[in-house]
Amino acid sequence: MEILQKISDSLIALKNKKPLVHHITNYVTVNDCANITLTIGASPVMADDIGEVDEMVSFASSLVLNIGTLNSRSIESMLAVGKKARERGIPIVFDPVGVGATSLRTATAKRIIEEVGPSVIRGNMSEIKILAGLDAQIKGVDSTADEEDGIRVAKILSKKLNCVIAITGKQDIIAKGDQVCLIDNGHPILSQVTGTGCMATSLVASFCGANEDWFVGAAAGIMTMGLAGELAQQSLQAGEGIGTFRMRLFDAVWTMTPELIKEGGIISNG
Amino acid sequence: MEILQKISDSLIALKNKKPLVHHITNYVTVNDCANITLTIGASPVMADDIGEVDEMVSFASSLVLNIGTLNSRSIESMLAVGKKARERGIPIVFDPVGVGATSLRTATAKRIIEEVGPSVIRGNMSEIKILAGLDAQIKGVDSTADEEDGIRVAKILSKKLNCVIAITGKQDIIAKGDQVCLIDNGHPILSQVTGTGCMATSLVASFCGANEDWFVGAAAGIMTMGLAGELAQQSLQAGEGIGTFRMRLFDAVWTMTPELIKEGGIISNG
Amino acid sequence: MEILQKISDSLIALKNKKPLVHHITNYVTVNDCANITLTIGASPVMADDIGEVDEMVSFASSLVLNIGTLNSRSIESMLAVGKKARERGIPIVFDPVGVGATSLRTATAKRIIEEVGPSVIRGNMSEIKILAGLDAQIKGVDSTADEEDGIRVAKILSKKLNCVIAITGKQDIIAKGDQVCLIDNGHPILSQVTGTGCMATSLVASFCGANEDWFVGAAAGIMTMGLAGELAQQSLQAGEGIGTFRMRLFDAVWTMTPELIKEGGIISNG
Repeated sequence: MEILQKISDSLIALKNKKPLVHHITNYVTVNDCANITLTIGASPVMADDIGEVDEMVSFASSLVLNIGTLNSRSIESMLAVGKKARERGIPIVFDPVGVGATSLRTATAKRIIEEVGPSVIRGNMSEIKILAGLDAQIKGVDSTADEEDGIRVAKILSKKLNCVIAITGKQDIIAKGDQVCLIDNGHPILSQVTGTGCMATSLVASFCGANEDWFVGAAAGIMTMGLAGELAQQSLQAGEGIGTFRMRLFDAVWTMTPELIKEGGIISNG
Repeated sequence: MEILQKISDSLIALKNKKPLVHHITNYVTVNDCANITLTIGASPVMADDIGEVDEMVSFASSLVLNIGTLNSRSIESMLAVGKKARERGIPIVFDPVGVGATSLRTATAKRIIEEVGPSVIRGNMSEIKILAGLDAQIKGVDSTADEEDGIRVAKILSKKLNCVIAITGKQDIIAKGDQVCLIDNGHPILSQVTGTGCMATSLVASFCGANEDWFVGAAAGIMTMGLAGELAQQSLQAGEGIGTFRMRLFDAVWTMTPELIKEGGIISNG
Repeated sequence: MEILQKISDSLIALKNKKPLVHHITNYVTVNDCANITLTIGASPVMADDIGEVDEMVSFASSLVLNIGTLNSRSIESMLAVGKKARERGIPIVFDPVGVGATSLRTATAKRIIEEVGPSVIRGNMSEIKILAGLDAQIKGVDSTADEEDGIRVAKILSKKLNCVIAITGKQDIIAKGDQVCLIDNGHPILSQVTGTGCMATSLVASFCGANEDWFVGAAAGIMTMGLAGELAQQSLQAGEGIGTFRMRLFDAVWTMTPELIKEGGIISNG
């Protein structure tokens, strides 16, 4: 399939460009996000003080805004840096962690969407449905909504916000207007490690920072995490568990190649 | 022994309920706390902004308050969320990291005890002695006090504060009034990894979030960490060290079963 | 070479003293810094609130100031705790992460140098050249400057600031006035893990906290990280990657001995 070739090529572009990815993200998974960004071949920078974010993002090839542990200080920095990134035309990847769980998260997501205008939104089904103004059961920051209507919701939200929507779950859905692809890589064990969603977002930003087609970049980031999860899970021996899995996940992203993507990627039109 | 059966049963209850554990904790070990919570079968959420903690804790089955890296902003959030959790009647597990080392920590611990009222306090001997108003040598946040009088101190403090006291050390002491149990699992290497105390606290909150008997929940969390430490240590091969140990610790919590608890748990009446 | 014997001896002193190392550092790599400090045999404490840093540092044997994710709150704490540490005469190890990338970082580094007066500065070539007032290309927080003139720059800055300068790169340069040593341990893979620079800084502070000769302490910390990187890299099997490397890096620091330093350390006069 043509898209798989494009995803495969996008990894080469990433490795060649080594894009700098500016993150304002949560303090729970920030180390994992920095490491996964380095591991795929990009370069992370984390800076969130209002006094320096404008300057820092001026070097960056893409921006991650992740509201996992938002606070009044970081919200203002996200809005400021987002506007600057928008001016510069670099891709802004938004991870609306736990939107809907609290009014603060919902209000902040709304401001980021309206005042910044993300290029890609990566979330689980519950989060994306909240953004689309639909009902979803929220339990903390975990996804509980089922995946039916996912494609429809992704298309509607993509058109409404004029951005790429990436919904991760059992089957991942990537939509840009009416263009949709479905990714069937991954493994349920990924949901037992904190930060795999955040790391997928960082991978999306790494790919988008080196590729002009952000639909392909989003698909590439999501597929890379899914494939790496499969490889890491398959490597587990008797007695090994989630600690070993987490280490091998980084090994698998580290050893990812265009060939592995073409061989292992499972993608179809939605 | 009857308590061992109850601890074993409490793991089944945890796996069935998958309780949501709200944490306000330090930024040093927060990722480990989130991962250990997921690993045992509960669900972590970290949120500390005063603008959302009330709402977030309304979904939670238990609350962790950990003052490892406290600051003026997080202290107010801890007090607010603690009061809300108290109103809801969910267990509040307090980890007084480094209390006694600075006036701010001591004053904050006092406020949490007086204004919130924890359900369980998990600390090392130095920290618990400070809370009990006794002398203890403090060197940073490490424990240096010896363990004599531990049972007496735990009983006194438990009665005074009407909560479960869990003292971790060479021998762990769990007290609820005059009811005391002693746990002899664990390995000294656990003290060479940062966050094993914090993770024990998160495990206690995970068990208490799914079990009404918080004395049993506290014992279950402490025993799980101790047993996992033993298993991880025993797995080490020549040339392997603390990095491998830390990974295997998560593997061991991941593969913990009611049977392993009944076989390996070493517990006696105090 | 005499210096190698001194470095080897400094590890014994560290293991005997178990110095407490107070850190104000970034939230990206703070867990790694705490763990590497424990792993080498020292004791970490992380505290950054202005209300307690003065008290906390009064127990400490050394202080780390790392501006990786600085903000207005932590800057004031760094200045306050730095002055206190200076009064006490304990070594202050400054890591000017990303200085030159933003005005805030440059201004903060200037304030720390002028108002506190570090004992050791550990940075990459770009960062040190910025501090020396020379030109350097900065791309986020990564080093891009070449290493020529490194020795000259290190000497000039050391004399100007009356402190030890440690430049890490392909070849590490340690300077104290005209006294210079060059370390040729390490492996390029170290730059693919976030926080190896920060961890080197924590190791320097661990050694300096137990040894009066901070030139030797700086060399010991840098060499330990380099040697550990070599050992971890050599251990990698087919299919293993950066996740495994990162784990083995801690294993290698854990198993470091005076003998391994004497056998593996590659050091020369500059």
